[in-house]
Amino acid sequence: MFHTITIVGVGLISGSFSLILKDKGMARHVIGVSKTEASIKKALELGIIDEALPLEEAVKKSELIYVAIPVDATIPVILRIMDLVTDKQIVVDAGSTKHALCQALANHPMRSRFVASHPMWGTEYSGPEAAVREAFAGRTCVICEKEKSDKEAVETVENVYRELGMRVTYMDADNHDMHAAYVSHISHITSFALANTVLEKEREESAIFELAGGGFESTVRLAKSSPEMWLPIFKQNREHVLDVLNEHITQLRKFKSCFEKENYDYLQELMENANKINRIIK
Amino acid sequence: MFHTITIVGVGLISGSFSLILKDKGMARHVIGVSKTEASIKKALELGIIDEALPLEEAVKKSELIYVAIPVDATIPVILRIMDLVTDKQIVVDAGSTKHALCQALANHPMRSRFVASHPMWGTEYSGPEAAVREAFAGRTCVICEKEKSDKEAVETVENVYRELGMRVTYMDADNHDMHAAYVSHISHITSFALANTVLEKEREESAIFELAGGGFESTVRLAKSSPEMWLPIFKQNREHVLDVLNEHITQLRKFKSCFEKENYDYLQELMENANKINRIIK
Repeated sequence: MFHTITIVGVGLISGSFSLILKDKGMARHVIGVSKTEASIKKALELGIIDEALPLEEAVKKSELIYVAIPVDATIPVILRIMDLVTDKQIVVDAGSTKHALCQALANHPMRSRFVASHPMWGTEYSGPEAAVREAFAGRTCVICEKEKSDKEAVETVENVYRELGMRVTYMDADNHDMHAAYVSHISHITSFALANTVLEKEREESAIFELAGGGFESTVRLAKSSPEMWLPIFKQNREHVLDVLNEHITQLRKFKSCFEKENYDYLQELMENANKINRIIK
Repeated sequence: MFHTITIVGVGLISGSFSLILKDKGMARHVIGVSKTEASIKKALELGIIDEALPLEEAVKKSELIYVAIPVDATIPVILRIMDLVTDKQIVVDAGSTKHALCQALANHPMRSRFVASHPMWGTEYSGPEAAVREAFAGRTCVICEKEKSDKEAVETVENVYRELGMRVTYMDADNHDMHAAYVSHISHITSFALANTVLEKEREESAIFELAGGGFESTVRLAKSSPEMWLPIFKQNREHVLDVLNEHITQLRKFKSCFEKENYDYLQELMENANKINRIIK
């Protein structure tokens, strides 16, 4: 499908992307761009990339440039890339926020060569070692501002994601950020806060280690996520995240009030309402 | 190891317990006791139990009686069982709270035939269909008030749990309930509350369904847990749960304040602190 692609960032998302495309014969040659020497070395070792080049050289050689780095760095890097590409090349990002990026690119003369995408998959791990061939499949990829990209560029990107086993859906950028706050960003905050809660209350670390069952591990695993990745997401999506965080504190206060007043009928009702998630999440 | 055992309740925990003991040749004949006709039928079908009997008959025939039902029902049921057993039989419970039960049994003349245990394993599912042969292994089983049980009874129960692949640890009942609140019960509340948050904010159920990645599923899966099981746990462990829930709301408020004041240095610090859970949870 592609002779040469570039991945900017050689971590969890771009690394998995590259491994799968190479496995499926969809990319013959993958160039890696990263400012972290150790990551480049690791990505070469793991066969994630075939060579490492500076950004400008890499872009010139590539049909597709796939950017998966923290969302604050994404904006200047993609602006630089857009200044280099021709109308035969496609630039894609994989970031968790879309509004700020789409705004920054709105008036770029090459805007139509850019496809704003968010493959809704991830783990709590980062770096090239975290890349896995089981990534993406069965999840949804959101494409934003489809109408601002060339039809052929969007189709190419969609085909790639579909080959990875993803469903493709469309949203405007602000809507995307709102939904992402609801179904992804808030989970990270509750998990970070739960870890801090337990670390604060449970002074005996050995007790956490010994007693933690699968339930605790499951609710707290996102607390291992990288602040380098998540702080920029939270900054860019501040308003939506704050909105849903307020709601979450309100919901927790309802539980608290049930315990304080020993209002167990209402506590049961709150749990039964939560069970409705069963209908939605398999 | 046993000729005949009884499981009281034929759900996730007792069902898994029975399946594994039968598989390993540790129990030849398993009697099921349940007030739910449909569960008995299903448990017979699934080979979880060999026959169903009323409690008194079942107890009389059994070397070991394993009780895994909601913790409020556990107390009267175990008191009834204790009135029936001889000093050749062993009674074990598998409940998530221990203080109220141990208090209720404290002065029973047969107290020494009872072993208070909490195998720290579970899933969000319940009923005999939820029973799995992969249960328990690699997790910790807490035994409370070990000194109040006959040495030989404790040893027998420990050996069973070790055969299931569990680590065995000891605690007094109140300590157990406190640690259980910290590393298990609070996870359920955050998960219930997160489900309610998202159901409240995200009016488009199709968006939740489409966009939810693995992170959301992981943090919210406990929200599918049965209120029938969890309401009694929360009631019995009210004080410890309220204590840790207050701390959790305090921790979330710190995140909220960071967003409100755009204090991103402190937000980063909070996330870095949460990352410490990495050291403790694999």
